[in-house]
Amino acid sequence: MRSTLIRNGILVTMNTKRQVFKGDLRFKNGEIIGLAKQLNPQSNENIVDAHDGFVIPGLIQTHTHLCQILFRGLADDLELLDWLKKRIWPFEHAHNRDSLGASARLGLMEMQLLGTTSVLDMGTVRLHEVVFAEAQKSGMRYWGGNCLMDRKDSAGPLYRPTLDTIAYCEKLIREWHLKTPLIQYAISPRFVISCTEEMLVKARELQDKHGLIFHTHASENKSEVALVKKRTGMNNVQYLKHIGCLNEKAVIAHGIHLSKSEVRAMIKARSGLAHCPSSNLKLASGIAHITDYLRQGMKIGIGADGAPCNNMMDPFVEVRLAALLQKPIFGPRALCAREAFELATLGGAKVLGVEEQIGSLEPGKRADIVIVRRDHPTLATVEDPYSALVYSCSGRDVSDVWIDGHAIVRKGKHQKFNQKNTIMNARLELKKLIHRL
Amino acid sequence: MRSTLIRNGILVTMNTKRQVFKGDLRFKNGEIIGLAKQLNPQSNENIVDAHDGFVIPGLIQTHTHLCQILFRGLADDLELLDWLKKRIWPFEHAHNRDSLGASARLGLMEMQLLGTTSVLDMGTVRLHEVVFAEAQKSGMRYWGGNCLMDRKDSAGPLYRPTLDTIAYCEKLIREWHLKTPLIQYAISPRFVISCTEEMLVKARELQDKHGLIFHTHASENKSEVALVKKRTGMNNVQYLKHIGCLNEKAVIAHGIHLSKSEVRAMIKARSGLAHCPSSNLKLASGIAHITDYLRQGMKIGIGADGAPCNNMMDPFVEVRLAALLQKPIFGPRALCAREAFELATLGGAKVLGVEEQIGSLEPGKRADIVIVRRDHPTLATVEDPYSALVYSCSGRDVSDVWIDGHAIVRKGKHQKFNQKNTIMNARLELKKLIHRL
Repeated sequence: MRSTLIRNGILVTMNTKRQVFKGDLRFKNGEIIGLAKQLNPQSNENIVDAHDGFVIPGLIQTHTHLCQILFRGLADDLELLDWLKKRIWPFEHAHNRDSLGASARLGLMEMQLLGTTSVLDMGTVRLHEVVFAEAQKSGMRYWGGNCLMDRKDSAGPLYRPTLDTIAYCEKLIREWHLKTPLIQYAISPRFVISCTEEMLVKARELQDKHGLIFHTHASENKSEVALVKKRTGMNNVQYLKHIGCLNEKAVIAHGIHLSKSEVRAMIKARSGLAHCPSSNLKLASGIAHITDYLRQGMKIGIGADGAPCNNMMDPFVEVRLAALLQKPIFGPRALCAREAFELATLGGAKVLGVEEQIGSLEPGKRADIVIVRRDHPTLATVEDPYSALVYSCSGRDVSDVWIDGHAIVRKGKHQKFNQKNTIMNARLELKKLIHRL
Repeated sequence: MRSTLIRNGILVTMNTKRQVFKGDLRFKNGEIIGLAKQLNPQSNENIVDAHDGFVIPGLIQTHTHLCQILFRGLADDLELLDWLKKRIWPFEHAHNRDSLGASARLGLMEMQLLGTTSVLDMGTVRLHEVVFAEAQKSGMRYWGGNCLMDRKDSAGPLYRPTLDTIAYCEKLIREWHLKTPLIQYAISPRFVISCTEEMLVKARELQDKHGLIFHTHASENKSEVALVKKRTGMNNVQYLKHIGCLNEKAVIAHGIHLSKSEVRAMIKARSGLAHCPSSNLKLASGIAHITDYLRQGMKIGIGADGAPCNNMMDPFVEVRLAALLQKPIFGPRALCAREAFELATLGGAKVLGVEEQIGSLEPGKRADIVIVRRDHPTLATVEDPYSALVYSCSGRDVSDVWIDGHAIVRKGKHQKFNQKNTIMNARLELKKLIHRL
């Protein structure tokens, strides 16, 4: 494979010294092999001019639902449990292979165009092989799996029997988990409410057996917390710990209403948090006190969550909002721009347990790289790269994206999918899905 | 003047029936003269194809500081009074005509590219004629004025004697107020802290004499409220009312920490609020309870405030954040998408007292019109226009802008200023200004 040289960028490395400098970066065979103020072009090398743009590590989203992308704008202004029962679950239930594929493809394309190179994704209860196939085609670094919902009383139309679910997980693991370098299966109990204890324990067993990420929602909403407490006598994370599901490959989405002991338990177990600030506001769930969590040492990434509860899949929007929301609570210096930017880079990599492979621009790491243009008047005069990237940037400013060294977006154009056709197909499949409902 | 026909748009009219339909819009001599499902092209008419994009009323920002645009990214992570005294006031003080012009031009261009057609702007204490001149060149519908700071103990380097200030105001009014249709002078005491009572009363007299907007900051920050209380024995708005400065052409920026009686006083006086959600978070000021204010009948617009406390000038960002922030406080249905969109259109028009002229697309209103593209995957599949515009949109999606019938942005390109030169000049002037400091 030919090497690629990115020239004339402002390299925001996120290495241990947090170096930022004008310079060049080279990668080959999917691996970053050099960064310097100047690298001399080699013969037969791809040359990319960054035009003074920011060259940053690919952004990592630690909580998404690609199966919900089509439902954007169809479930506004509702609280979590209503939102799930009245809209999202019936919508997910109405998916067929075509609509699910269209939803996943649109979301993957959107997130990549906006600078996302890794996602941890939760599917619906079936057909998740369709999402894996789209993720593979898109070139995304992807962790995900079918979601587990085996409680008849709390799964609506998405209920699936425990053993059928396990069999389906095992099939997906066999067929998709690490069969290609960028695709990993993640075991994904939706939340405590929707799962039997048997299911959660079996999920943990599968996690152990295959070295999987354990991905769930917890402590997102007060009614949810109350219901878990009523059923188990415990808070969410306390219960997950109690049944052995809290560990260093567990990723808890939201975690807004955690007790102090739950925060300590997550940190002790080295479990990660997926912070979803837009979604947490839109569903009226609250504001997670991540400044406090970070001070105590929690691993935290960000996620756009589902398109119907955000309704953007833009990691820059989440990073900016994450930073802004902490300040009225913890003061204006809380979650400064650099710390906020870390959430979407090294923070996310730590949550996924892959900080040795991605999350910064360093020789030996995988070539997940994004170029952000600096020509929009909103950021063109800002010299501090963290300030520009966190407070002034939109995912619309991303021009180029590589994942594992593969060109995914070039000069604003997606290289894997036809943008127009993907959108037209998504519109068509949404119409058919609504007709099926 | 030739008429212009915008065809094939989704017209989001904001008329009294809040009609939304696919159709065409015609304007001539700066006035909207027709909207219908289909209008037949006339001979010698400009034809614009909206390509199925949203055609919306131009967005209105009721609180900005064009003089601060250059300082973006240079004052992050500070609280209001520190932010003012340590950074903003010394920066403003260092302006000369060239740097102020560069700052205003960049900000005007940025806001127009992002869909803004009207602004209420607060200047620094001098050289405001430079901002007026840039506003006129840009084609912006502009209200603004030099800010008033005549208290030696609370104005830092920006202190100006009372009578000198008044003389300067009168000169600006004479030379700029309504000398051209789109430019109005607004009398702008910075905040109670920085003004003597004599200054505030004289400002009110000038307001009366010339029919001006009275534009000030109030109840943004707890320390500010405490200082006003210490000096006057009253809360901010209570004090403004006491000295006769609360009236239907008064615009209060921020208003986060208003007492119940202050809210009632503003509503009774028909004073308007400029809600600045990003700035309110970034300076750790708090979240204004605008759902409560709106229920009681307050007139509310939105504003990006200054670039160093936001750091974007994007009205779409403010509308989205305004909607999201209310939900954890007042529930998920609070400030639904349509209500949020009203803030930046009719709401802003009411705050500025020009709801008969702008804020909706209706025959007889001025032609302040924006086209928003719908081809980005983030909004391409959303049918509900309010949901798309509020929750999924970025100002980067704006393709065309007309103000008073004049083409300001066409196909993403600014028609009045050269984008590259404006940015280069801003960078240069910022360097020189920092050198002067």
